Amino acid sequence: MKALSFISHSKQSLFSSSQITANPTNLSKTDESILKFNQNPIQFNPTFPQKNPNFPSLSVNSSQNPDPQNPAPPLVVVGSANADIYVEIDRLPKEGETISAKSGQTLAGGKGANQAVCGGKLSYPTYFFGQVGKDANGKLISEALESGGVCLDHLRSVSEAPTGHAVVMLQSDGQNSIIIVGGANMCGWPLVIGDKDLEIVRNAGIVLLQREIPDSVNIQVAKAARSAGVPVILDAGGMDAPLPGELLEFVDILSPNESELSRLTGMPTETFQQVGEAVTKCYEMGVKQVLVKLGDKGSALFIEGEEAVKQPIISAPKVLDTTGAGDTFTAAFAVALIEGQSKQECLRFAAAAASLCVQVKGAIPSMPDRDSVLNLLRSP
Amino acid sequence: MKALSFISHSKQSLFSSSQITANPTNLSKTDESILKFNQNPIQFNPTFPQKNPNFPSLSVNSSQNPDPQNPAPPLVVVGSANADIYVEIDRLPKEGETISAKSGQTLAGGKGANQAVCGGKLSYPTYFFGQVGKDANGKLISEALESGGVCLDHLRSVSEAPTGHAVVMLQSDGQNSIIIVGGANMCGWPLVIGDKDLEIVRNAGIVLLQREIPDSVNIQVAKAARSAGVPVILDAGGMDAPLPGELLEFVDILSPNESELSRLTGMPTETFQQVGEAVTKCYEMGVKQVLVKLGDKGSALFIEGEEAVKQPIISAPKVLDTTGAGDTFTAAFAVALIEGQSKQECLRFAAAAASLCVQVKGAIPSMPDRDSVLNLLRSP
Repeated sequence: MKALSFISHSKQSLFSSSQITANPTNLSKTDESILKFNQNPIQFNPTFPQKNPNFPSLSVNSSQNPDPQNPAPPLVVVGSANADIYVEIDRLPKEGETISAKSGQTLAGGKGANQAVCGGKLSYPTYFFGQVGKDANGKLISEALESGGVCLDHLRSVSEAPTGHAVVMLQSDGQNSIIIVGGANMCGWPLVIGDKDLEIVRNAGIVLLQREIPDSVNIQVAKAARSAGVPVILDAGGMDAPLPGELLEFVDILSPNESELSRLTGMPTETFQQVGEAVTKCYEMGVKQVLVKLGDKGSALFIEGEEAVKQPIISAPKVLDTTGAGDTFTAAFAVALIEGQSKQECLRFAAAAASLCVQVKGAIPSMPDRDSVLNLLRSP
Repeated sequence: MKALSFISHSKQSLFSSSQITANPTNLSKTDESILKFNQNPIQFNPTFPQKNPNFPSLSVNSSQNPDPQNPAPPLVVVGSANADIYVEIDRLPKEGETISAKSGQTLAGGKGANQAVCGGKLSYPTYFFGQVGKDANGKLISEALESGGVCLDHLRSVSEAPTGHAVVMLQSDGQNSIIIVGGANMCGWPLVIGDKDLEIVRNAGIVLLQREIPDSVNIQVAKAARSAGVPVILDAGGMDAPLPGELLEFVDILSPNESELSRLTGMPTETFQQVGEAVTKCYEMGVKQVLVKLGDKGSALFIEGEEAVKQPIISAPKVLDTTGAGDTFTAAFAVALIEGQSKQECLRFAAAAASLCVQVKGAIPSMPDRDSVLNLLRSP
């Protein structure tokens, strides 16, 4: 049974020739080159799954029996939420020195929250499972997620630690120095993730992870997803530590950028051939699909035993700020995948979203809505 | 008329032998060495002065005709409100480097907000006139002021700038490097302060200023206070720029610490004699009373033509954190003064408040309530 491929972790690809996807509501497709993404995706039902605890797991294996009565299985993003404190300075202060910044701004961020807001803005039902502290930065993040349309039922507010934050010191010479406070992203998690939170993971269409929370949390979530046949995408961004095998075992798609791929494999990734060789190393590490973000060189989806699918960037008239572009790409890809698009369509949708993202300053403020992405894909 | 000394800016001292003070409710006094501070100060009436726009100015000149029907003239603190972002790091990051902090915490601060909360915690009716941005840090500050019992009717929330904040990088070797973002403390002020805000200044018992907002705002406030016969205390802490003569002209008491006194006068302040000489320079600059905070050497009030009144510190069993001690000292001194205490009593009250402050971590969390101060003053 192909539908069980994620459960048994066989080498069956998420993208098979018969297009087994996470989508229970097969969208209309044409042979035209213009994509027909669903412009009226099933609306978010924030009472799900509480009101329907026996809701069947609508993951890959459900796509063959879509049930229009049931809401779409949500995108569940598990990860970090951060207050990004930007200060614009001429130069770094010395020891003991007090200097004035030219300007400062605090924005909601964190790879988890970014990716969740991206899902929400693309009008796909999206849950965020993560932690903030009981403080002002926690409110900043809740509000950003909420206004992005993300369901906060699984946002935990903990007393043990402040909301995670990062001081980003933007210097005149273009260099950035960053101080990261893990806070509630790293502390205060229960040793064993509760069943209420794992339930939403099991009911997800896709689970999206990154590496800004403890590996132990990611492992539990990925295991729960796998047990329910829910595909797991792991964005390799975040902490610079080896990927535990116990996590990789439950990951369906690993998504690094070039430098993360190089770090994870210890191999060069400067040419496309080198990227391919590093991806082969990933296969050996246990993950069978690798979605590589190559910056201005585009992106490529590698599946073991198949030819890589490449996607050039969709060039932006002006590139203002690339912050959050990687998060936008990964989350948009996940949304397209959950909606049943082809490999190439998923890559194009993600490339279009990322192209719109780099034209606006900030991470969350720059994430495009669905209409903007579709318009860009339709434009000649 | 002695009561007009502040209006005419004569050399009449705030502390004269006939004890002309800002207090309309002369407190019981004894000849005993134990101070009898009012333990049940007039309660804060947050509807004042809105409900009583014709409320007479109850400043120095009102003390001779106390009217028990009228509420106490409030302490009005005009100044900065800041989010202090502490990050504990091993060392400063280099250019382009990302490092992890050992811990981080964001606390409400800013000299203006600190001093206002101190007044509120000492149960004296206290208004804060300052600015925050429309952001999460602004809420942090509003909540801190509110829970300190401060009236927020004159807290301005501006769109032009973020709430002022400071990144305090605490390094393992004990050094602190600080990046200050002036934000709403420095931007978004009206060119001409509105009459609604100046009204509370004119109705104050004492106005307390510092140097973390534009001089132009301080000057307008100090002028308005002077025009209504309201004494002005200027804490010299904040920006390191020469004091404009136009401001000093309307200041009744200047309150620097040793290093601020040295900076302002360009003179050494290492010995008490040097401090006295620097204070003489202040007299020449136009201010006739100088309240000097001397750290662990205590404090002293200098009045031109009189002998300095000295106050040693009231030693704390353990000194945990001196942050906010200077703000606590100045604000507690202002409260005692507004309540009609003698010079020595004001200094002792302030020293006791500061002694309690240094025993608790943080600025605002460490500010003592009135009972704690009175208990310390009563203890043998």
